[in-house]
Amino acid sequence: MSTPINLDHIRDAAERITPYAHRTPVLTCAGLDEMTNGHLFFKCENFQKVGAFKFRGACNAVFSLSDAQAAKGVATHSSGNHAAALALAARLRGISAFIVMPKTAPPVKIAAVKEYDGQITFSEATKESRDETLKAVVDKTAALYIPSYDDPRIIAGQGTAALELVEDIPDLDMVIAPVGGGGLLSGTALAVKGLSPGTQVIGAEPEGADDAWRSFQAGHLVTIDHPRTIADGLLMPLSQRTFEILRESIKGIVLVNEKAIIRAMRLVWERMKIIIEPSSAVAIAPLLEGDLDTRGLRVGVILSGGNVDLENLPWNTT
Amino acid sequence: MSTPINLDHIRDAAERITPYAHRTPVLTCAGLDEMTNGHLFFKCENFQKVGAFKFRGACNAVFSLSDAQAAKGVATHSSGNHAAALALAARLRGISAFIVMPKTAPPVKIAAVKEYDGQITFSEATKESRDETLKAVVDKTAALYIPSYDDPRIIAGQGTAALELVEDIPDLDMVIAPVGGGGLLSGTALAVKGLSPGTQVIGAEPEGADDAWRSFQAGHLVTIDHPRTIADGLLMPLSQRTFEILRESIKGIVLVNEKAIIRAMRLVWERMKIIIEPSSAVAIAPLLEGDLDTRGLRVGVILSGGNVDLENLPWNTT
Repeated sequence: MSTPINLDHIRDAAERITPYAHRTPVLTCAGLDEMTNGHLFFKCENFQKVGAFKFRGACNAVFSLSDAQAAKGVATHSSGNHAAALALAARLRGISAFIVMPKTAPPVKIAAVKEYDGQITFSEATKESRDETLKAVVDKTAALYIPSYDDPRIIAGQGTAALELVEDIPDLDMVIAPVGGGGLLSGTALAVKGLSPGTQVIGAEPEGADDAWRSFQAGHLVTIDHPRTIADGLLMPLSQRTFEILRESIKGIVLVNEKAIIRAMRLVWERMKIIIEPSSAVAIAPLLEGDLDTRGLRVGVILSGGNVDLENLPWNTT
Repeated sequence: MSTPINLDHIRDAAERITPYAHRTPVLTCAGLDEMTNGHLFFKCENFQKVGAFKFRGACNAVFSLSDAQAAKGVATHSSGNHAAALALAARLRGISAFIVMPKTAPPVKIAAVKEYDGQITFSEATKESRDETLKAVVDKTAALYIPSYDDPRIIAGQGTAALELVEDIPDLDMVIAPVGGGGLLSGTALAVKGLSPGTQVIGAEPEGADDAWRSFQAGHLVTIDHPRTIADGLLMPLSQRTFEILRESIKGIVLVNEKAIIRAMRLVWERMKIIIEPSSAVAIAPLLEGDLDTRGLRVGVILSGGNVDLENLPWNTT
């Protein structure tokens, strides 16, 4: 399957979401530069609306719809940031958002969806129940299903973060982003390759959810049975679509272990005084642990989000 | 006692520290604007070197010295951010910093001073022991004592944060800053009044350390015996100097209680995804609690710092 997504789609997405999304800042940190012997540029999607890059894709998808397509609202299943992102995007467009969430979703995520006027239907915490519940919701409402990552509009939207990063910071040697389902990394790779073909793109993945790494090793899409990681934004598997995009456009996948994720997260909190979620720390851990040699290099890092439960921080509970 | 400090001193300080200090960003937050019905502009000194505005004053003081004055190094007593700030400023100038800290200082603060090559002498946790220890250190080393706030060079340095804020965001109706010893608030008031005379300056103070509020009520300097607040950067009393400056230049002092400080701190972490320490939250609490009417106003808020113990967050321990 070849990809129909290119730099023009990402530029269109950027134009489409500009009235609604933040152009997030790019921060630097002398302390982290010293530790990595590199020059790190952090694209702060933790400061994005709803606290994560997910708003970019959801916003692009919702505002891509014709009035007829949008009339009945949009629907999705998600226990995380995509749910809140779609709810907010729909509210901004003035349409309904129907969100299927597992009963086990964290209260803080449920509250976020409600805050943005998303209409929640709870399912059991299984894929079967989730899919059935979503189907029932769509059948009843005729709302349009917007997937969380396996969708060209979503991928193009997520690519706008890297588009801004490369516009702001030219001559990057490398861009690194976390990989779960691959929507963010695919969009990042397409934007970077389009604007700055000499820049390497690397995906960072937790060891406990290493389907992308395994897929790259095998040369075909591999799924794993029970992904487990503190980086709960990265539990979803690659799709055939995102795998194909990544295979054509990134340099490789680097794995990080749970302790390294927590160390990186804490270090950023302490040094940069910004709140990042574990999924963001996944992109920083390989730089700090020496798994990537960044000596003298200019490295862009996509900080994917900042939604954490402040009462259950990993250094207090492990 | 009249103040010899004016806008020119603050401009000189700004020029002096520019090569070393960060020009910190000014952030906004739509969510907090909505809650306060105002337009809030947050000057992020939590992103400053050593994680607090204290670096500005210390840097200005250290680089104000003649080579002869600086030759023997500098000395101070502090259990907090001034200690780290002076140590870093001294290192940047290539001179020694002798820091007296109470044995009871938090390990994280001690580590910060050591990281910047500060030479620590421990005292007992009493004012008497602290003063005696400092005197002994100064007698022995001939280092120059740099106070943490009761000093024109320090006050002028702290004023550079507000100078930048007013340069970046004109037409502010109000600027609010926390008050402990009054160095930051004095510098803020002098900068704001100099550049933008129509802008009100307000001090925010914890109820448990309310000597500034009492002094304003009484019309003369009042001290209290056992200040207690989670905002540990605000335990020091006003000096005669800072009281005189504030009396001439600010609109008033507003008090905040401990629960409001913690609520404000947590809200900023959750909504803005930035880490602020309780002292910073003191300046935000009155806006959120409705103690100041900011409807339709453009309000600058000085976020003083972001140094917290991530293992003892107030919402987990109280």
